Amino acid sequence: MAGTLIDCPVRRLCVAGTVAVNRQNRVVNSPANVTVLGSCGAWPEPDRACSGFLLEYDGFRVVLDLGYGTLPRLLAALGSTTADGLDAVVVTHAHPDHMIDVHGLFRARWFGRQGAPRIPLFAPRPVLDRAMALEDDDGSAVARVFDWHPLPAPDCDVGPFVLHSVELPHFVPNAGVRLSAPGLTMAYTGDTGPDPAIAELGRDADLFIVEATDRAQQPGAAPAPEGRAMLMTAGQAGAAASEAGARRLLLTHFWPGNDRSLSRADAEATYDGEVLIATEGLRIDLP
Amino acid sequence: MAGTLIDCPVRRLCVAGTVAVNRQNRVVNSPANVTVLGSCGAWPEPDRACSGFLLEYDGFRVVLDLGYGTLPRLLAALGSTTADGLDAVVVTHAHPDHMIDVHGLFRARWFGRQGAPRIPLFAPRPVLDRAMALEDDDGSAVARVFDWHPLPAPDCDVGPFVLHSVELPHFVPNAGVRLSAPGLTMAYTGDTGPDPAIAELGRDADLFIVEATDRAQQPGAAPAPEGRAMLMTAGQAGAAASEAGARRLLLTHFWPGNDRSLSRADAEATYDGEVLIATEGLRIDLP
Repeated sequence: MAGTLIDCPVRRLCVAGTVAVNRQNRVVNSPANVTVLGSCGAWPEPDRACSGFLLEYDGFRVVLDLGYGTLPRLLAALGSTTADGLDAVVVTHAHPDHMIDVHGLFRARWFGRQGAPRIPLFAPRPVLDRAMALEDDDGSAVARVFDWHPLPAPDCDVGPFVLHSVELPHFVPNAGVRLSAPGLTMAYTGDTGPDPAIAELGRDADLFIVEATDRAQQPGAAPAPEGRAMLMTAGQAGAAASEAGARRLLLTHFWPGNDRSLSRADAEATYDGEVLIATEGLRIDLP
Repeated sequence: MAGTLIDCPVRRLCVAGTVAVNRQNRVVNSPANVTVLGSCGAWPEPDRACSGFLLEYDGFRVVLDLGYGTLPRLLAALGSTTADGLDAVVVTHAHPDHMIDVHGLFRARWFGRQGAPRIPLFAPRPVLDRAMALEDDDGSAVARVFDWHPLPAPDCDVGPFVLHSVELPHFVPNAGVRLSAPGLTMAYTGDTGPDPAIAELGRDADLFIVEATDRAQQPGAAPAPEGRAMLMTAGQAGAAASEAGARRLLLTHFWPGNDRSLSRADAEATYDGEVLIATEGLRIDLP
């Protein structure tokens, strides 16, 4: 799981740029937390948003996914109209419920902080392509705001974190991610069908954010194509967290209209630890 | 201004479909209102959203623009996770701060109301193209959710309204729109530079929604390209409303970070009527 650290461009950026301040001042087990920006899968329920999480550790802030409706919540969490204080972006895959507001974030930086250092963006290539396609230029403006790095990729430093990533089964390439810093490990599946790699991703994590789309709650939901599930139930999420030995499980990516208390009960049937239910604005102190 | 009604496909749809119920039951001067879904230009401020307005008249509901962050607010205003009760969509132009959440609305209908009648979508073609490009298919799914009609176009019935549209100057094709029903006229510029057509669009309107981007409030704002402004100041918005003889002026599309009280003061210096400031959740009873 630990992998070998490589001297990737982002590591050099971290050492050379503003992140270095955080690294130099880093205090092991310093305050860390996750704020839920959005909890819905596919599209947002009324007054909610789709996938998005802001992870803060020792003053370093990385956002994981930016689906429909997340950007105003991210900016509120940062306390900045121009996303000042955001150090990195990680996006699991190119479905709009996980990345559409990356383009809005681009605009906040392009118009609001021209000339500022580029923000590292870790994402499968289609995420970048989709953001670029929303501009009327050749995409070069997006490339001047984000310093793109592909996912999945070899382990790499992202500020105080080691970013580990692995491809998980979904309709499009999806990278499960694991962010480890001294005293803290957090993992996040993005969207995935059941797979042994999920337990490895979340091994001994302090917080394991697992999608629990639970299509089965919806009458008439289409069966899994080609005989393989590409999304999870809450029971499967709990089982994966159990196998991983994760300390806490945060269920998310609820299909609109689902009964989240049912999802919680299903996860508690397969996982003995604490089950948290993602809801917009929820802040979880770590570890 | 009145134009000639044509027997366009939407008119036939209205008469044949659910809209006919509204038309048949229509009561002149029945309750009407506008709800502001988003008030920001370019990108959303913290806990706000970009352009979006829900217009309701005699139970018929049409949304005008759906920028970043508007979809959860639209669904809350409709009281429906699947946008039940929404009768039509009008989008002024293809910039994402005016249309990105059209794709989320597509998903709400595609996944949540498969087989439901298509929702009329009036928009310049690039709006449809952009929404289609966000899908992994050939765009046919989007075409099965929305019944697209180009803008600008000849006057046409949209439920109880006559929709009048005119191209206004912007970086991309932008359609100013005017919706008239017995006892009510509302007009909306979308994004525009100053132009004599704006006053014609808002002639004697009960409510004139005019963009007041007011880039001039921001230090270092880029000058208008090619010597022609493609956005408005609040003072210009007030002047256009004065020339139109509009009864009320709703300023919107504020550049993030702008002082909206300054925009109000500037508009009041050029317009004697009531100046309203768009803010998320504001509901304005009409006429």
